[in-house]
Amino acid sequence: MPETLATHRYLVLAEGHFGPLTSKTANSAVRYLPERVLAVLDSAQAGRTVQDVLGFGGAIPVVGTLEEGLRGGPTALLVGIAPQGGQLPDAWRAVLAAAIAAGLDLVSGLHFHLGDDAELAALAARAGVAIHDLRKPPASLPVSHGRARDVDALTVLTVGTDCNIGKMTSALQVRDALRARGERVGFAATGQTGILIEGWGIAVDAVVADFIAGAAERLVLQAAEGNDIVLVEGQGSLVHPGYSGVTMGLLHGSLPDAMILCGLPSRTSPYGGNGAYSWMRLPSLSDTIRLCEAAVAPLKPSRVIAVSLNTWDLSDAEARDAVARAEDETGLPATDPVRFDPAPLVDAVLAARKS
Amino acid sequence: MPETLATHRYLVLAEGHFGPLTSKTANSAVRYLPERVLAVLDSAQAGRTVQDVLGFGGAIPVVGTLEEGLRGGPTALLVGIAPQGGQLPDAWRAVLAAAIAAGLDLVSGLHFHLGDDAELAALAARAGVAIHDLRKPPASLPVSHGRARDVDALTVLTVGTDCNIGKMTSALQVRDALRARGERVGFAATGQTGILIEGWGIAVDAVVADFIAGAAERLVLQAAEGNDIVLVEGQGSLVHPGYSGVTMGLLHGSLPDAMILCGLPSRTSPYGGNGAYSWMRLPSLSDTIRLCEAAVAPLKPSRVIAVSLNTWDLSDAEARDAVARAEDETGLPATDPVRFDPAPLVDAVLAARKS
Repeated sequence: MPETLATHRYLVLAEGHFGPLTSKTANSAVRYLPERVLAVLDSAQAGRTVQDVLGFGGAIPVVGTLEEGLRGGPTALLVGIAPQGGQLPDAWRAVLAAAIAAGLDLVSGLHFHLGDDAELAALAARAGVAIHDLRKPPASLPVSHGRARDVDALTVLTVGTDCNIGKMTSALQVRDALRARGERVGFAATGQTGILIEGWGIAVDAVVADFIAGAAERLVLQAAEGNDIVLVEGQGSLVHPGYSGVTMGLLHGSLPDAMILCGLPSRTSPYGGNGAYSWMRLPSLSDTIRLCEAAVAPLKPSRVIAVSLNTWDLSDAEARDAVARAEDETGLPATDPVRFDPAPLVDAVLAARKS
Repeated sequence: MPETLATHRYLVLAEGHFGPLTSKTANSAVRYLPERVLAVLDSAQAGRTVQDVLGFGGAIPVVGTLEEGLRGGPTALLVGIAPQGGQLPDAWRAVLAAAIAAGLDLVSGLHFHLGDDAELAALAARAGVAIHDLRKPPASLPVSHGRARDVDALTVLTVGTDCNIGKMTSALQVRDALRARGERVGFAATGQTGILIEGWGIAVDAVVADFIAGAAERLVLQAAEGNDIVLVEGQGSLVHPGYSGVTMGLLHGSLPDAMILCGLPSRTSPYGGNGAYSWMRLPSLSDTIRLCEAAVAPLKPSRVIAVSLNTWDLSDAEARDAVARAEDETGLPATDPVRFDPAPLVDAVLAARKS
């Protein structure tokens, strides 16, 4: 049996960029697939543990060379960084070629599909290894007709004040907590990292623009099969100057019954572009709630039911204070579902199902 | 010199679908490039004139066969229909192949790129003719950084209550009237038909989702060069269940100084999908204005300054009544810029430039 997304053991490539905020895919693999991440490759941090760098992840080693990384017996090299624009940095070609030569599959979430690269594709074919581009959309997608509004399962979408703020992580923390309570929960993965973790999904930011909502519709219908609750991984933000189109299409394609708003208290301007968005201030939590609810209202009434904060860069006292202020401002339950108990989010989801 | 989009004389393929609402690309070619449309091919209406079918277009003949259509000496076959989903109907292959064999270039706005079809590409190469896919996006596009807010020209985007409602036509009518008054006006074409008419542009519904706003940003910067006013062709609607992502990305990428709202008074549910959207009612003009202004406000303050109505299916008295009601409801100047004088829209644009 060939290895798949459900079975691969990974050496994670994060060369020069492994860190709490700079290697989203790598970090999520560590958090949600820890038993299948054997090592992280970043020569700038070699010799440390993942715990040293991220503050979680235990004794998984950071290695400085491919050769060291191969010692644990990985079955695939996972590209653990997703630079804005998604192109393949030239400096990575040598290590990707060496990984192929060592018999590793490649798993990548870059916009640029490794399988479309003539050199890498030829090397992979010769070595008999597979290239799995997580962001490659299905060959044909529908235009959404709004069918997601018909599913019986309660659908909950994570939305945010910004991109790269914790929408996938919030949904996964709620997923795990709901499953621990015995609930039948589907997870609709909409980005490369969610697909890596869940094993299926569609990267809605990589589809042709007319089919964003159609991709979301298809995901919700599929995730609802055999489940009572569907958690939809959010993308971007309705106010992000670069990515708001993806967010809007995902909102209207998934037509959620309820939304969880994700925020990062220390973030004041939109993320990305090396400071290119410093001209703009992010709206408050309550303004963002109004925007999200107003954006979906013409299609379907839907409410934000809870606030999920990302407080990784705050002290414990600051984090507790931020949660209390979010509750005061919005009148909704709030928590940081990674740092604290996700129960306030989980309870809000279960209450929405009953109402 | 090979023929280009600026010089082609067209035989327009609209087989089985030529009509006021069903052949948007064909009809716009007739309206804006009348001297370069030699005939329309639709065997169901052969023998009539374009005027008979559309109510405008004069003596341009509707022909029943390719052979008849060739008599006028066209240089290209223009695919004049854009079915939802954009696939190539099998029934068209024979006529496309025959057109190629007759030495015509192909010009198409389908989502499906004719140039990517192995059979058609091989035939075209053998015949030495070109295939121009209007919807094919540029090879590389940026993520928008909001640079459109910096242009000196006044930027005006047409928005709408729905798709296929007159956003391109409204912008073109205003463009022509402004140019007649001596203004320096750029037109940022964002869809296949606008590109056909203007000769350049990017079909923003055909780009990869992460780059919708980036494509719009690039178009505005380019259209602003040497001009004092930029009219941006709108797409879709912020409430269309299938296409709202495109609309949102276009709004945030173009960051207009002002907007013109387009409506079709007789339309009550979103367009398309053979009635698939009958479950939803379109919002009113004033609710749509609030939605559009709220959606762009976090990035830049922008106001709807006028209303453009499409009254093609109303009597003169009904059309005048619809315009008066739109003015009452919104407190803004309104007109049907095709049926009546576009001056109310033009005056609103010029007033916005001074304010």
